[in-house]
Amino acid sequence: VDTTLDISRAQRCGFPEVVYGEGKSVETIVRIFEKQREHGDSSLATRIDADKGAALKAAIPEGIYHELGRTFRLPNEVPSWGKVGLVTAGTSDLPVAEEARETLRWMGIEPVFIQDVGVAGPHRFAEQAGKLRDADVVIVVAGMEGALPSVVGGYLACPVIAVPTSVGYGASFQGVAALLGMLNSCASNVTVVNIDAGFKGAYLAGLISRRVQQAVQ
Amino acid sequence: VDTTLDISRAQRCGFPEVVYGEGKSVETIVRIFEKQREHGDSSLATRIDADKGAALKAAIPEGIYHELGRTFRLPNEVPSWGKVGLVTAGTSDLPVAEEARETLRWMGIEPVFIQDVGVAGPHRFAEQAGKLRDADVVIVVAGMEGALPSVVGGYLACPVIAVPTSVGYGASFQGVAALLGMLNSCASNVTVVNIDAGFKGAYLAGLISRRVQQAVQ
Amino acid sequence: VDTTLDISRAQRCGFPEVVYGEGKSVETIVRIFEKQREHGDSSLATRIDADKGAALKAAIPEGIYHELGRTFRLPNEVPSWGKVGLVTAGTSDLPVAEEARETLRWMGIEPVFIQDVGVAGPHRFAEQAGKLRDADVVIVVAGMEGALPSVVGGYLACPVIAVPTSVGYGASFQGVAALLGMLNSCASNVTVVNIDAGFKGAYLAGLISRRVQQAVQ
Amino acid sequence: VDTTLDISRAQRCGFPEVVYGEGKSVETIVRIFEKQREHGDSSLATRIDADKGAALKAAIPEGIYHELGRTFRLPNEVPSWGKVGLVTAGTSDLPVAEEARETLRWMGIEPVFIQDVGVAGPHRFAEQAGKLRDADVVIVVAGMEGALPSVVGGYLACPVIAVPTSVGYGASFQGVAALLGMLNSCASNVTVVNIDAGFKGAYLAGLISRRVQQAVQ
Amino acid sequence: VDTTLDISRAQRCGFPEVVYGEGKSVETIVRIFEKQREHGDSSLATRIDADKGAALKAAIPEGIYHELGRTFRLPNEVPSWGKVGLVTAGTSDLPVAEEARETLRWMGIEPVFIQDVGVAGPHRFAEQAGKLRDADVVIVVAGMEGALPSVVGGYLACPVIAVPTSVGYGASFQGVAALLGMLNSCASNVTVVNIDAGFKGAYLAGLISRRVQQAVQ
Amino acid sequence: VDTTLDISRAQRCGFPEVVYGEGKSVETIVRIFEKQREHGDSSLATRIDADKGAALKAAIPEGIYHELGRTFRLPNEVPSWGKVGLVTAGTSDLPVAEEARETLRWMGIEPVFIQDVGVAGPHRFAEQAGKLRDADVVIVVAGMEGALPSVVGGYLACPVIAVPTSVGYGASFQGVAALLGMLNSCASNVTVVNIDAGFKGAYLAGLISRRVQQAVQ
Amino acid sequence: VDTTLDISRAQRCGFPEVVYGEGKSVETIVRIFEKQREHGDSSLATRIDADKGAALKAAIPEGIYHELGRTFRLPNEVPSWGKVGLVTAGTSDLPVAEEARETLRWMGIEPVFIQDVGVAGPHRFAEQAGKLRDADVVIVVAGMEGALPSVVGGYLACPVIAVPTSVGYGASFQGVAALLGMLNSCASNVTVVNIDAGFKGAYLAGLISRRVQQAVQ
Amino acid sequence: VDTTLDISRAQRCGFPEVVYGEGKSVETIVRIFEKQREHGDSSLATRIDADKGAALKAAIPEGIYHELGRTFRLPNEVPSWGKVGLVTAGTSDLPVAEEARETLRWMGIEPVFIQDVGVAGPHRFAEQAGKLRDADVVIVVAGMEGALPSVVGGYLACPVIAVPTSVGYGASFQGVAALLGMLNSCASNVTVVNIDAGFKGAYLAGLISRRVQQAVQ
Ligand SMILES: Nc1ncnc2c1ncn2[C@@H]1O[C@H](COP(=O)(O)O)[C@@H](O)[C@H]1O
Ligand SMILES: Nc1ncnc2c1ncn2[C@@H]1O[C@H](COP(=O)(O)O)[C@@H](O)[C@H]1O
Ligand SMILES: Nc1ncnc2c1ncn2[C@@H]1O[C@H](COP(=O)(O)O)[C@@H](O)[C@H]1O
Ligand SMILES: Nc1ncnc2c1ncn2[C@@H]1O[C@H](COP(=O)(O)O)[C@@H](O)[C@H]1O
Ligand SMILES: [Mg+2]
Ligand SMILES: [Mg+2]
Ligand SMILES: [Mg+2]
Ligand SMILES: [Mg+2]
Ligand SMILES: [Mg+2]
Ligand SMILES: [Mg+2]
Ligand SMILES: [Mg+2]
Ligand SMILES: [Mg+2]
Repeated sequence: VDTTLDISRAQRCGFPEVVYGEGKSVETIVRIFEKQREHGDSSLATRIDADKGAALKAAIPEGIYHELGRTFRLPNEVPSWGKVGLVTAGTSDLPVAEEARETLRWMGIEPVFIQDVGVAGPHRFAEQAGKLRDADVVIVVAGMEGALPSVVGGYLACPVIAVPTSVGYGASFQGVAALLGMLNSCASNVTVVNIDAGFKGAYLAGLISRRVQQAVQ
Repeated sequence: VDTTLDISRAQRCGFPEVVYGEGKSVETIVRIFEKQREHGDSSLATRIDADKGAALKAAIPEGIYHELGRTFRLPNEVPSWGKVGLVTAGTSDLPVAEEARETLRWMGIEPVFIQDVGVAGPHRFAEQAGKLRDADVVIVVAGMEGALPSVVGGYLACPVIAVPTSVGYGASFQGVAALLGMLNSCASNVTVVNIDAGFKGAYLAGLISRRVQQAVQ
Repeated sequence: VDTTLDISRAQRCGFPEVVYGEGKSVETIVRIFEKQREHGDSSLATRIDADKGAALKAAIPEGIYHELGRTFRLPNEVPSWGKVGLVTAGTSDLPVAEEARETLRWMGIEPVFIQDVGVAGPHRFAEQAGKLRDADVVIVVAGMEGALPSVVGGYLACPVIAVPTSVGYGASFQGVAALLGMLNSCASNVTVVNIDAGFKGAYLAGLISRRVQQAVQ
Repeated sequence: VDTTLDISRAQRCGFPEVVYGEGKSVETIVRIFEKQREHGDSSLATRIDADKGAALKAAIPEGIYHELGRTFRLPNEVPSWGKVGLVTAGTSDLPVAEEARETLRWMGIEPVFIQDVGVAGPHRFAEQAGKLRDADVVIVVAGMEGALPSVVGGYLACPVIAVPTSVGYGASFQGVAALLGMLNSCASNVTVVNIDAGFKGAYLAGLISRRVQQAVQ
Repeated sequence: VDTTLDISRAQRCGFPEVVYGEGKSVETIVRIFEKQREHGDSSLATRIDADKGAALKAAIPEGIYHELGRTFRLPNEVPSWGKVGLVTAGTSDLPVAEEARETLRWMGIEPVFIQDVGVAGPHRFAEQAGKLRDADVVIVVAGMEGALPSVVGGYLACPVIAVPTSVGYGASFQGVAALLGMLNSCASNVTVVNIDAGFKGAYLAGLISRRVQQAVQ
Repeated sequence: VDTTLDISRAQRCGFPEVVYGEGKSVETIVRIFEKQREHGDSSLATRIDADKGAALKAAIPEGIYHELGRTFRLPNEVPSWGKVGLVTAGTSDLPVAEEARETLRWMGIEPVFIQDVGVAGPHRFAEQAGKLRDADVVIVVAGMEGALPSVVGGYLACPVIAVPTSVGYGASFQGVAALLGMLNSCASNVTVVNIDAGFKGAYLAGLISRRVQQAVQ
Repeated sequence: VDTTLDISRAQRCGFPEVVYGEGKSVETIVRIFEKQREHGDSSLATRIDADKGAALKAAIPEGIYHELGRTFRLPNEVPSWGKVGLVTAGTSDLPVAEEARETLRWMGIEPVFIQDVGVAGPHRFAEQAGKLRDADVVIVVAGMEGALPSVVGGYLACPVIAVPTSVGYGASFQGVAALLGMLNSCASNVTVVNIDAGFKGAYLAGLISRRVQQAVQ
Repeated sequence: VDTTLDISRAQRCGFPEVVYGEGKSVETIVRIFEKQREHGDSSLATRIDADKGAALKAAIPEGIYHELGRTFRLPNEVPSWGKVGLVTAGTSDLPVAEEARETLRWMGIEPVFIQDVGVAGPHRFAEQAGKLRDADVVIVVAGMEGALPSVVGGYLACPVIAVPTSVGYGASFQGVAALLGMLNSCASNVTVVNIDAGFKGAYLAGLISRRVQQAVQ
């Protein structure tokens, strides 16, 4: 066999290993899902293109494939207990946002989703900021100059997880401009994950929100 | 005057504006501290070299200057209520870690501090990981290849905020190698701030911990 | 002699050659100012450090040295006819802004100056945007993530000239992050000049404003 | 719905939001065009490949698709009132220039177009510079070393908007060489937009020219 | 003819020239294999895609094509005498690891292969480190942040040859993040070869192991 | 028309304009060839792929298409008078070398061609260096680490024009490693052209050789 | 205390932890040396400038400070048993080579040292290659284009550890050109360590040589 | 001793080894000059700062130190036979140009020197181009956008050696912008050397000119 599944991850880290689908065969992924089921773990795979998605759906019919987000996951019976915001700068950032949303759902959270409120129309986010006032954490997905997280961070008191996207052209350098913008944010509450890493942004947001919810109880 | 102090920041974002000391005169900083005091806000300034530190201490004797961390702040009467971990890879990362520790103290948190446990001696962190098992969040400060946050992330269930430092030489490119390593961490719970941004790492950790503590009550 | 002064520049391009002071001796600069005076041209030199500034002031007592902006120029008798905005994100951007302001003054324009209104406090610019509603052009000077020009561009109908500064640390890469952010601005009316190029931003703004004013008459 | 159309943009910024076609479906674009029509706004979409172009033409027959420039727009009934120059260095820069020309037409301007006058044949632009002597602003589109804007700037008194293109190979790095060349132009009247950003260069030129024309009246 | 085969290489350097298959025709490769056979040398070609592999197999039926590793080689009759470890961080690093393994086999070594033990599950390598305690040298293949070689180096006394892979996305920059991480390893016994250079890592490991084995006799 | 042919180039610069084929239609290229013929100029086009090559051959049957070098040119009746060396490091550098050779032939020179003598087999060039002892100039084409020009430069007294190629993988960054190596050559007689710029290397070599030959007469 | 000394390193990895002197106080270093002595370990510190060197010499008189190599170490009573080659390209590479030599001496090895034999005089190394024919491993230290390791690798059958140096200017980018050249070496037996990492190159060479010597016995 | 002087260089390459002064002591340089004198070779050292220059002058009184060019050389009795042009874009490029001029003088050539004719005043070079019409080769020294070589190349039939300088700020990246501009020159007769490499540009020009002059005889 060619994988050394990290079976104790759920215990150690709270959630089981998530499968990075790039370069893995359908067989490998199915095998991992099965092993995880044996250990009572739920499963999520990212970076699943349409062909792999169809094959996975055929093999595991109860699984949910999200075409735009390129994720495949088992359904989560737990009802949403969320306080997580998810904001995008433009329509082209949607695939990354959907990867994030599916990851959150797998963790049991339905985020408050605010779309297409980039800084070129600065009033757009300002008008909806109220919806996120009591969020535990907000994910902001943006490409091009990646300025939106700074503005969102300026309106809110909670942590902001910035996800740069490869949306743009020329000197956007496949997301590098957005990444650098976010790393240099003058808003103190902005932290950053990898370019197009919707999964990671969501996973961190989910961890934070869960801690807060657990503390509530 | 040359500053437009963001006076409503504490209300909007939970904490008042922090002064970025680079390129500001002692007079300017003192004036900002006074204005913040008038509004009932506490104050913190970062990137304060030894000379400025002495001058600020002379002007505001109750202030606390930290030489290694290059911070100047007002004392925080609130006793520590922390659950924040602070981990360094090597001795040379100390100045950035101290900037983080002073920021946390200003927020009312005394972190659990574990030093010099870089991955070249992998047992070192493993032996102390238990101390952080129930932390709300852990800050990991590392230069060179920046691998420590991934390892720490692999042991813990809480969010890990990685702070890359400019420690290293040659192809470390003043912290770029560490930054890239952290952004590409295969541990899902690692998020990243700017190179040498001890302040930012701590500020975010403080926000997360405070949310959890508020929820507890 | 080691210079080939571009004597016909004022005729060809509207303004005489401006002296780039870096690496030029005081003697060379004085000689150029004299030659320009013979041709009836006014003079401006940039990148003049304090020592050179003092020496130039001694040689040409009517000249105006600006320490922060590091410029030396002849006074402009023409009264200000301006409609140019000049906006900065933070206090540390002031030296670049002053280079811009002195350049505008040399062209006969006193800009409307709005300082320290970076995006971390997004209401700050919004409150003052009205002052620039009828500007011919606005210069925005910002370091770190360089997001302010996008926001300003989103509020105004005139061209915005973005000047990235080398203010910041770590992944700001001496202004590269701000430069890339500005080049990728999602606001359509933002154009960019070189890092720390206060002179160029102002020169372009001056050209645009002059055209509009000439058209008025 | 997945877009938050910036409906007040025309009022705030003088022109309605322009659609960035990359990654948007034909349906989305048609819906936006319809909403804009309801508000009395004209429409322009950029980055429209041939397939999308055909589908848009089918849906909105009065629209004008430009294959080389990859734009789709509604016709502009206003006759041209232009004073804008558009200059290219080589034949391969034509697609970017056409994106610029279509944007100008959408704004109601027919530019003076001078093609293929790169610096390897320096007399070529010199011979035609006269045509642009009274232009309000000139757009210069160039790839490879991007030297043409400096030369054009040296001949003219108006602002020059430089548009670097990704034309070239090897160390041109998809337009980075041209971009850097333009940012470092020793001509004071040169400002820069993103690589291949024909739209942005034109939009800014249009704004400048319109201001001048409005002032004339 | 278009090649100058380095016929004395086996004598000078211990092993004959290895064929870099990229951009070489099947005919050229077959011709080189034949020439090497005439000189009594064994042959190995790397970077052989599936089509070329089939054609080579048809021309030289005793040759061994490895699809994942993209190598073609003559069989090695010598039994394995190895003491070389081969470790991968994740499943996606397998193609590079297979190129390494085939190269080792061609040199007469069957490595100890440990897979999918990346640092996000730090116990995974720790549990198997014993298998490599007496290795002459260990090859570690890893993408993303490339942290595994540092950890492996921290457990072992032998040299570690780190092979960065282009596995990852966003700020992994096709293996640059892993390469930089490895070059900056705080473990003193880590040396590095080019991105995806499974062949080179193995060749060096083979050279080291052979020297040790020769010394034993 | 969309080209401004630089008709006086042959007079000014010794040779007519060479057509950069990338992004030009067959029609455009044929039209340029015809115009040049009217002015008594010979013609050369570079970057001509197989399809365009066939179409050009059909339109201009006396033209010579070189598939590997991707050039199309008119035959040169003048017999070869060359003293130009052309050296490659490996077989994969051949396409760039052929672009160079065809350019030289168009200029009337048949170079001395030495292939596949890269530095990993250092004796290979040493053995053939004698053939180039009296060359006017030598072109060295190399990818990967691009070390060959330094070694060739160390053996010869004439100028060496180094042409880096994009051959390699990983940290070769499409020729950047070779380019940097050549720019930093410790041999004083090495100068450099763009990555894959076989045309330029040859054009310069041809200019130098022609000068020497003209001086002879 | 601020260090977590890796006391079991000598047991685990064969040699005790080496002190990276940058940013450590004399007191800290002395304390580490003492602790290591208590455990029967020998000590080496790198990156020790002249001032620290003098202070360390005063505190530990039997220690050996090497000014050029910037190392401080305890003497090694064991006689040299070496088979390690150490080669430099130019005189300016000496400091890095001396760091390597002192590290080897601390490990008990006196290397065969060949200096100033860069590729611009290619016969220089060829004449002395014989001295290294039976070396276990060779370290090659080179700046600028970093071509020497490829040539050395082409003459020898043993592993070559390439150490790029920051010697050079302009496009050498503080050693990046040399680093890239070495990573892309067309010689199969070349592996690379960080820029200016004389310590690391030597440490690895020492490990390899020791293994061979141990096998001999 | 720490140098392996390349004594046969003059014979092999036409000129003796030139001393790169950076990091060499006065004693070392004097010793090299003496050894070269014994072999009947003339001497040149570059990168000699003012202090070293004075010490060298004291030791070798007949030597010529050039402060701006930072060179030290023995006088050349041969009268100038030059046909080499030397052109600078701006006054700040003078130090690099002087390094080039002194190198040429050491080779026996006094160049035609044209200064400060950058492209922002495009008529300046055009007016003086006639002086270089019959040059064997022209060196063009330029910083910032590095556009001058393209323009010079467009006027002349001889080879143009472009020397980028580190003059500029911001996005000039210490000469990288100029270097890239020159490498991508659309003028076919432009070749490039390292940033600030006045010596190399001149050495190559000298070699070319000497060949032509030798052919004349
Ligand atoms: N889209 C993703 N981005 C980053 N990391 C991921 C992603 N999906 C899964 N992972 C992580 O990648 C690791 C699995 O790697 P592998 O062993 O190659 O499947 C796990 O630690 C996951 O948490
Ligand atoms: N060390 C630091 N790193 C990053 N941001 C900081 C730092 N110190 C203060 N800040 C932020 O910088 C902003 C103040 O900038 P300024 O107006 O220039 O004083 C505030 O938003 C602070 O939260
Ligand atoms: N392969 C090539 N590389 C670089 N420059 C070229 C190449 N082929 C032609 N050129 C030059 O490109 C210019 C023609 O550009 P264009 O007007 O786009 O055809 C001429 O100055 C040629 O000398
Ligand atoms: N010059 C050097 N270059 C790279 N690593 C070094 C150097 N000197 C010591 N080290 C390593 O750095 C680590 C010590 O780091 P620290 O805890 O900061 O002293 C040890 O693992 C050493 O092996
Ligand atoms: Mg939108
Ligand atoms: Mg340590
Ligand atoms: Mg402020
Ligand atoms: Mg053309
Ligand atoms: Mg795995
Ligand atoms: Mg070969
Ligand atoms: Mg030497
Ligand atoms: Mg000048």
